[in-house]
Amino acid sequence: MMKTLQVSLGERSYPIYIGADLLSQGHLLAQHIQNNEVCIVTNTTVAPLYLESLVSLLSNDFHCETVVLADGEQYKNLLELNQIFDQLLTSRFSRQVTLIALGGGVIGDMTGFAAACYQRGVPFIQIPTTLLSQVDSSVGGKTAVNHALGKNMIGAFYQPQCVIADTNTLNTLDDRQLSSGLAEVIKYGLINDIDFFEWLEINMAGLRAREPHLLAEAIERSCQDKADIVAKDEREQGLRALLNLGHTFGHAIETGMGYGEVLHGEAIAIGMMMAADLSQRLGWLMAEDVDRMSRLFIIAGLPVTAPAEMTLTQFMSLMAVDKKVQNGVIRLVLLKSIGHAVMCDDYELSKLADTLTSFTGQ
Amino acid sequence: MMKTLQVSLGERSYPIYIGADLLSQGHLLAQHIQNNEVCIVTNTTVAPLYLESLVSLLSNDFHCETVVLADGEQYKNLLELNQIFDQLLTSRFSRQVTLIALGGGVIGDMTGFAAACYQRGVPFIQIPTTLLSQVDSSVGGKTAVNHALGKNMIGAFYQPQCVIADTNTLNTLDDRQLSSGLAEVIKYGLINDIDFFEWLEINMAGLRAREPHLLAEAIERSCQDKADIVAKDEREQGLRALLNLGHTFGHAIETGMGYGEVLHGEAIAIGMMMAADLSQRLGWLMAEDVDRMSRLFIIAGLPVTAPAEMTLTQFMSLMAVDKKVQNGVIRLVLLKSIGHAVMCDDYELSKLADTLTSFTGQ
Repeated sequence: MMKTLQVSLGERSYPIYIGADLLSQGHLLAQHIQNNEVCIVTNTTVAPLYLESLVSLLSNDFHCETVVLADGEQYKNLLELNQIFDQLLTSRFSRQVTLIALGGGVIGDMTGFAAACYQRGVPFIQIPTTLLSQVDSSVGGKTAVNHALGKNMIGAFYQPQCVIADTNTLNTLDDRQLSSGLAEVIKYGLINDIDFFEWLEINMAGLRAREPHLLAEAIERSCQDKADIVAKDEREQGLRALLNLGHTFGHAIETGMGYGEVLHGEAIAIGMMMAADLSQRLGWLMAEDVDRMSRLFIIAGLPVTAPAEMTLTQFMSLMAVDKKVQNGVIRLVLLKSIGHAVMCDDYELSKLADTLTSFTGQ
Repeated sequence: MMKTLQVSLGERSYPIYIGADLLSQGHLLAQHIQNNEVCIVTNTTVAPLYLESLVSLLSNDFHCETVVLADGEQYKNLLELNQIFDQLLTSRFSRQVTLIALGGGVIGDMTGFAAACYQRGVPFIQIPTTLLSQVDSSVGGKTAVNHALGKNMIGAFYQPQCVIADTNTLNTLDDRQLSSGLAEVIKYGLINDIDFFEWLEINMAGLRAREPHLLAEAIERSCQDKADIVAKDEREQGLRALLNLGHTFGHAIETGMGYGEVLHGEAIAIGMMMAADLSQRLGWLMAEDVDRMSRLFIIAGLPVTAPAEMTLTQFMSLMAVDKKVQNGVIRLVLLKSIGHAVMCDDYELSKLADTLTSFTGQ
């Protein structure tokens, strides 16, 4: 059974297909390919699992080439991106080529950015194969690569033709990756959907046991929450920034620890706990809500304390280059309560320092 | 005396200011800078001429940093582009930073593309200092870097906040660069403005002698012609492609000879002669029109024959990866007459082969 959600963005609108075994349904893909040129971008982990069957599904009808990148956030940079351009140009692919991102968030971000730039823009399709990319990064058109000095600093807003989330692909995901995705799922509950948060409290054990109907429901609800926000604020002028709950702290951890050391979901779980801590210090969030969040993250298999290596200075320095900085002030997403996130730039700096001190044990 | 033209693109509309001594008028610039963060990108040739005065004009009101890149088309690549990101991140510039491109087409293309990508898009201003960039590349929002396998293959459509064309900067341009710019000026006459072509025939000697009022008039008319076309077709779905007259042949020459060997204007002058030759073979252009074009290019100090090193095979191979290729057919801009260019993809391939044979002497 397949569900179809729609991301409403005028002429850039597109469908998200969610269901089991979608990767074997060639027509789903084919209807979104405009020309006979296709280039699948994937990585060394995903390629052995799904690349051959996808290529055989397409190669009768399309001139289909592939790019297999190294796996990991540490390879999400301009140098690796150039491998995609190398393949496209060596294959003499035109401005009508469709790129297909087959993999997790890194592959989706890189393929989307390559599509945004190749010949100043060609169509692309997202086939996310991790929970994290199915519930978050494949939806909404944010694409980017990292720079040594900051995460996702080089990129574009560029929407795909469609997103195909095949829940079967989650069966090959390791437990740590599954938990990383659950961090983004929990985020939607925290931002503006307390019912979903409560549903997650009840069903977290079943989600970690990969019960198919629970995973499908979590993905659908997450995508719906995200699509609603993106439709209202595609280029992050306001509302969409709430989706960055935990991310300013989290990006600092990812950059500070070295890309690939801490998974994205792990870093933002810690980041959400830091946002909760600051929110509590500001008198907004109650201690029992912070505990409730902590419990859910732990049941989801996620960390709730910062890595011992991270220092206060490192946090301050790395957070200062975040994209959410305006006029020198670090704008943070904080919590008025569970299910009610707000953007805040007039918090007391001393309270932020207290939070950082508390999490770095200094 | 300053002229102001408008590029009409809805919410992406912007003015082009043309006149003498505009670089000393700080308010022109300042009114288009939204925040206190500014980064000027220039090259080793232009920096000694104008950078210091521009910085002193801005540094009272803005936090102003600079990036000085190596000069030349051969440096227009992803690697050099990263130097801009390095500076922006080292300076901790936010999503509100304004980039200023101070230089010729290469600096404009790279700075514009960096602005399109930094934090997924920040504002930028074009200050073109060559005739070529004043009449062509600074207007219309095409930004890009080159790839070893093809020119301008990685880029974005991204419009500036304004264009400031100070005609005084042309006084420091060498003769070869001036002629290169004149190639793009002549192009506008050929595409759809026979009156302008005739004006150029009368005034070419004066333009090469840099008579200020003639240069200003040529720049204004070229920008107006280009702005009219871009306003009707920003993303090159149709009409705008006519601006590529001579470019498919020309890009092949630039790539084939190695970036920087042949100037862009020189390459497209040859390319326009090749397009004229093919147009004549198709029975469209008369021999005397081809001669008339050739005479004007020669008076402008431009080449009209292909470099001896270019082979027929090289032309075919390099033209096949051009962005104008659709379904395997190389779409070319050809001339029905002087002042009437058309897009054509159903020419006889044997005639194209004849043109290439004739220009490569094989």
